[in-house]
Amino acid sequence: MELKPTKPLSGFIELTPVQQRCFDACVGRMRGVLNTAGYARLDLPAIERAEVLTDKDNWDEIETQMFLFKKGDTKMGLRYDGTVGLSRYIAGHLNDLAFPFRAYQFARNYRGERPQRGRYREFYQMDIDILGLETLSTNYDAEIVATLSRMYDSISDIVGRVKIKVGNRRFWNAMFEYLKLNDEQSRAAFVLIDKKDKLKGFLPALIEVVGEKKANEINNVFTKGYKSFVNKSINLKSAVTEIDEFMRLLKSMGIKNAEIDVSIMRGHSYYTGIVFEFFSVDYPYLPAVGGGGRYENLVSKFSKTKIVGVGASIGVSRLLVALMEEKKIDLSKYETPIVAAVLPMGNSSVPFAMGVVNKLRTKNIVAVAYLDAEKKFKNQIEYSDKIGAKYSLIIGEDEVKSKEISVKNMATGEQQKMSVSDAVKLLKTVK
Amino acid sequence: MELKPTKPLSGFIELTPVQQRCFDACVGRMRGVLNTAGYARLDLPAIERAEVLTDKDNWDEIETQMFLFKKGDTKMGLRYDGTVGLSRYIAGHLNDLAFPFRAYQFARNYRGERPQRGRYREFYQMDIDILGLETLSTNYDAEIVATLSRMYDSISDIVGRVKIKVGNRRFWNAMFEYLKLNDEQSRAAFVLIDKKDKLKGFLPALIEVVGEKKANEINNVFTKGYKSFVNKSINLKSAVTEIDEFMRLLKSMGIKNAEIDVSIMRGHSYYTGIVFEFFSVDYPYLPAVGGGGRYENLVSKFSKTKIVGVGASIGVSRLLVALMEEKKIDLSKYETPIVAAVLPMGNSSVPFAMGVVNKLRTKNIVAVAYLDAEKKFKNQIEYSDKIGAKYSLIIGEDEVKSKEISVKNMATGEQQKMSVSDAVKLLKTVK
Repeated sequence: MELKPTKPLSGFIELTPVQQRCFDACVGRMRGVLNTAGYARLDLPAIERAEVLTDKDNWDEIETQMFLFKKGDTKMGLRYDGTVGLSRYIAGHLNDLAFPFRAYQFARNYRGERPQRGRYREFYQMDIDILGLETLSTNYDAEIVATLSRMYDSISDIVGRVKIKVGNRRFWNAMFEYLKLNDEQSRAAFVLIDKKDKLKGFLPALIEVVGEKKANEINNVFTKGYKSFVNKSINLKSAVTEIDEFMRLLKSMGIKNAEIDVSIMRGHSYYTGIVFEFFSVDYPYLPAVGGGGRYENLVSKFSKTKIVGVGASIGVSRLLVALMEEKKIDLSKYETPIVAAVLPMGNSSVPFAMGVVNKLRTKNIVAVAYLDAEKKFKNQIEYSDKIGAKYSLIIGEDEVKSKEISVKNMATGEQQKMSVSDAVKLLKTVK
Repeated sequence: MELKPTKPLSGFIELTPVQQRCFDACVGRMRGVLNTAGYARLDLPAIERAEVLTDKDNWDEIETQMFLFKKGDTKMGLRYDGTVGLSRYIAGHLNDLAFPFRAYQFARNYRGERPQRGRYREFYQMDIDILGLETLSTNYDAEIVATLSRMYDSISDIVGRVKIKVGNRRFWNAMFEYLKLNDEQSRAAFVLIDKKDKLKGFLPALIEVVGEKKANEINNVFTKGYKSFVNKSINLKSAVTEIDEFMRLLKSMGIKNAEIDVSIMRGHSYYTGIVFEFFSVDYPYLPAVGGGGRYENLVSKFSKTKIVGVGASIGVSRLLVALMEEKKIDLSKYETPIVAAVLPMGNSSVPFAMGVVNKLRTKNIVAVAYLDAEKKFKNQIEYSDKIGAKYSLIIGEDEVKSKEISVKNMATGEQQKMSVSDAVKLLKTVK
């Protein structure tokens, strides 16, 4: 019989137990921040109707980007982000939820496209949203940024520090209006500004689209600063003021690592106001590790009620798995969590040994037993060593009789007999 | 434009925030038990190659039971349990893992079949396994049962108590051998015993398959007890002894709610020894809420190395969602976790208010701010009430100046001014 492949499909992540412990620790800390900030967790289905996932009808085309399939007559597929499901959910629960509603999702999302380096077909993303009925103050945009910032801070000893870049879509809308660009020009200029840092010839490309004069004006935003346009129109004044007030508010929330970068656009077309991205300071070659912004009319495909919001996401797999693969994360702290390996010498010692294990676990001491009890001492102590147990508790006939167990410190090799309750006291001190 | 449906696809679970908090609390406790018992978490891909999921080639037939699809030339699908991925993973990591290897998975699994009451197309399952290289003592079977038992105990205040029924496949193998049943008769008898409790005429059905004499012998197992066969053959003696020793071992581990029920078979064909199921004591009409058993040759499709194991699973969604839907779970404790709603009266109070929110969150006090600060006091206090905040912290111009905030107890209506640090002290006492 031919053996089947043991590797996961390409584009799918598989962590080692040590990596998983580190991953889970990071996620736990980030969820802690969100819980304290009063965000409710939503855990929505990974499968949605195709019509929820996309407005497009061209099945062949979207099939290459998504995982789509049919059950009976129903077309469905795996979600590619948290927003589609959130929109559907909110529209279906308008009357049960208190607005502004703070929600987060920590879930797997799926991309059907061919996997590339750093892009997975299945990945975890943390989606954070605040949703308002009809209106929502931009103060909430600042709260989201502050909350994301605290989430990154909570894991900065593991993944390093971040900085925040803040832009404003409204500024560009006002700018294009002031420059009297038509829709097509606006769209093209928008794309060029979004890609500015990656383009070799930003200005020449811009000139081709909007002409020399207007291109120079747009370029002045970057050379002379966006503030130099504050008095050119009412909308420009309002957009510039919005950014400045936003930055002041961030400061009042204790955020010191934010700067304005009006080239920040966030590709997605649904953003309408403040947009922001988080970048790694310690690993500056990484693409944005998170970001988000303000959007209008989230649920318009599901309900006539107007829901506005501000949302952000953290590419948790992207960030953590990339750094783990590059060995940038010190995993030594996560190597082994085992405090005690209990080693019964023979089956007749097993009941007493399991009583000891039970007692340790009840006291929250991470303990495992080697229960192939008839195996030699050598095999047993090798196991204890291999799993990195801090202590081995050796239990033979003598120990069962005397109720005193032999406790061996695996680092020093020192061994002494003691009562179970003294062993508990000792092991409690192991961090 | 026609609005899209807001309900999830049928067979998919969608919890309210309150239900989700309760669900997450239960999962957190169960994971705590597993961590203390030294089980490593594996979080394997939800999508596997079709050839990993099934040996069958009849695509049409298996497609009705699973979610299967194609990307490029690769057939793949969503996993239906934790065992398929585990087998592949273990076979691929034989040299990196220390055996016996304790692992758990808490993950979503998928069934493509038409949904029925209590059966979901997407559901969470907790899979727990101990894997040995070549051999594994049955002592580990007792550990798995004890660990599951502690997991259920950890949530018994929420879902009620469980009891354990223990069977032994080896007993029936020995019994059928003693009765000289052929393969076909053995298989048929096996199925009948597995379904015994659901059958109206167990004995008549059995007679039809194995004849009157042998059917009566099998029935004697239930009427006279399995122990009455202990001396009929060496294998029967060994199987009976194995059960008895197993029960003694469970007792030594502090498990008092286990009983022998030799009709327990666990449908899956891969079990080979001790099998067990957990049943709800408080909700006896529920089907088994968990179970497992011993299996041989887990990874034979992926590797020539022999891996034996004992595994168990808890149908977490099945148990919790069923009881939530029947309103059997008291969700009042999970209603709202919000301790403080901070209400700034006007945008000029927002920076100070956000400073207060920050301070509370840093002290692990769950705090949210109402940041549509220009809205009336009435709207703001209504929001605080609606989200069930224990206290409202009202911050207007006076408060910003004096640095004293108005703290309103939402249950008593009592309101007093105090410094931020006094407010922190007060709110720290809210459980």
